[in-house]
Amino acid sequence: MRELTVDLGERSYPIYIGEGLLSEASSYFQRHGISKRSPLMIITNDEIAAHYLAPLQTELEAGGYRVHSAIIPAGENSKSLDMLGELVGEALEAGLDRKSAIVALGGGVVGDLAGFVAASYMRGIKFVQLPTTILAHDSSVGGKVAVNHPLAKNIIGAFHQPEFVLYDLYTLQTLPLREVKAGLSEVVKHGLIWDAEFVDWCEKHANDLLALSPDALGYALHKGCGVKAVVVSQDETEQGLRAILNLGHTIGHALEAVAGYNELLHGEAISIGMVGSARLAMKFGAPSQVYEQTKRTLAKLGLPVVLPEKYDVDKVMSAMMHDKKFAEGTMVFVLPTAIGKVEIRRDIPVDWVREVLEQLKLEDEQQ
Amino acid sequence: MRELTVDLGERSYPIYIGEGLLSEASSYFQRHGISKRSPLMIITNDEIAAHYLAPLQTELEAGGYRVHSAIIPAGENSKSLDMLGELVGEALEAGLDRKSAIVALGGGVVGDLAGFVAASYMRGIKFVQLPTTILAHDSSVGGKVAVNHPLAKNIIGAFHQPEFVLYDLYTLQTLPLREVKAGLSEVVKHGLIWDAEFVDWCEKHANDLLALSPDALGYALHKGCGVKAVVVSQDETEQGLRAILNLGHTIGHALEAVAGYNELLHGEAISIGMVGSARLAMKFGAPSQVYEQTKRTLAKLGLPVVLPEKYDVDKVMSAMMHDKKFAEGTMVFVLPTAIGKVEIRRDIPVDWVREVLEQLKLEDEQQ
Repeated sequence: MRELTVDLGERSYPIYIGEGLLSEASSYFQRHGISKRSPLMIITNDEIAAHYLAPLQTELEAGGYRVHSAIIPAGENSKSLDMLGELVGEALEAGLDRKSAIVALGGGVVGDLAGFVAASYMRGIKFVQLPTTILAHDSSVGGKVAVNHPLAKNIIGAFHQPEFVLYDLYTLQTLPLREVKAGLSEVVKHGLIWDAEFVDWCEKHANDLLALSPDALGYALHKGCGVKAVVVSQDETEQGLRAILNLGHTIGHALEAVAGYNELLHGEAISIGMVGSARLAMKFGAPSQVYEQTKRTLAKLGLPVVLPEKYDVDKVMSAMMHDKKFAEGTMVFVLPTAIGKVEIRRDIPVDWVREVLEQLKLEDEQQ
Repeated sequence: MRELTVDLGERSYPIYIGEGLLSEASSYFQRHGISKRSPLMIITNDEIAAHYLAPLQTELEAGGYRVHSAIIPAGENSKSLDMLGELVGEALEAGLDRKSAIVALGGGVVGDLAGFVAASYMRGIKFVQLPTTILAHDSSVGGKVAVNHPLAKNIIGAFHQPEFVLYDLYTLQTLPLREVKAGLSEVVKHGLIWDAEFVDWCEKHANDLLALSPDALGYALHKGCGVKAVVVSQDETEQGLRAILNLGHTIGHALEAVAGYNELLHGEAISIGMVGSARLAMKFGAPSQVYEQTKRTLAKLGLPVVLPEKYDVDKVMSAMMHDKKFAEGTMVFVLPTAIGKVEIRRDIPVDWVREVLEQLKLEDEQQ
């Protein structure tokens, strides 16, 4: 079992990573002072529920907990104000009070939604995260929770830190391979912004990761969470440093918007975005090896590293221009200056971005 | 002009109380660092907008601010998740970013709703309160913001402190007399829990207050906000002390629920509730003078101090029993032990409460 702490003063919390942790969940709940007198509510989706809900509920009830569970449809559409209202209704009917906890069993969608329920129910109750995807190693650190609005993703939310995170590696075994790869994209991102050695390790152990070796996964998730934790602990509410976590996201978000949210997974979009950022960085003098290793590592993990021919560069550009509204009139790019090191630049000529996208697309044709 | 500070460390903020403050709003906005580069959004209701929106918007625009305004229907029904979604949509279309501020122009409903928009939009942006009712002297201190769920009031919310509060006494001149009285109920409550001299003052100056004398109102709001500020600064997130602010609310909330939310104003319901608490306190040995002065002061302000005959005691009791669910199985009562002093008791026999309600009702018949 690996453990690390997200250091946020009074709101610090541990992340436990290991095999079979869900089967001893109640001892963790107890150790972290989750009340047995007040009911708790597990929020999960229909797909995850089929695998892991019943045993978890049995385990917690055996430990003396009163457990209500709420099952939402899988997919991004569940991150809505309507679903928030429904879950608050369920919480009220189940008798959740100020001492109760909301438990997120699932990936990023479940975590973001359940976290916002916990942040806003009675103005904030306790929250526990039980991630079941690789991608959730990212969203489970830092306390960003939110739902979507028809006009923008993650626009209604809060910063609400969990009491603890219990990461059971067994739950990753049932992930579809495509989601495994997409999740590893954010793992590599954490290396690229902070830890060159870890990027080397990812490149060397790509096959172990894809084979879901518990040892390799445990190591990689511990490293990935660790980078995120250090960054977040220095900038909890995203005033500055935390923006480096957006490596690959300027292009990535635009691609997701153009592709439609199910055609390109988030991790796939930011994989292309990270390669694009590394190419853009070359124009500011970053060595070509940075671009090459970024691309090579992501490719070894089976991630897309070129812009598929079918995406229109104009549309991607215009999606990016729309996004910039949200940052007070400036277009923000995170650029790698070396492997393990990035800088934030706000002076990127629009033409350079277009040029890079066209290069990325050309590479698709050449493949 | 009177000024006081709500002392909350990094989140401390001032409250300015005086005549004509809205006509110099932009200088306050500027002094408190509200950005002119990012648009701001005023949220108000149709009734208040008719009186004060146009001059305020003109004043802010003359000061260099870009102002969007959103007008909601007056009334408690606007405090909903649907309205939150609509307002977030308006904010997005108006281009509000992380440096923008949400400005609440209105009473408690507008403040609670606008505050939750500010708390959750992009996970929290700046918030400015411009209260236009007496009751809002209460809700504008302490940062409690929320919307309602069909099953419970104020159940979805946050703690989000404003940058500052600008309380223009001119806006109180257009209040209907019934709302003036209901607002004064919470003013007296702040005296009853903390400041005996101020209760004496309220009793002596009841007529000045009802005549909306700016001097009397300014003094009373400064005192009322001051008590709330001291209590809140010692217990920002309602872990303990802050509960004393609920004097009169156990019975009051039950009455509101039984009466339907428009038949009995909040201030009227808690007026009856405070008299009931003082009677209940006598059973624990509080002197009868406490009960008598409580009743006399509220009556002088034209507030109801008996339980109207038409309300069924059984229904009020059952509404109270329902409410108790939210406090982990205990029924909480704030009881006055002297004028200016209260204690929280969790050991109230249900029969005593019923007895007190019946006494309060009997007094209605005797009048």
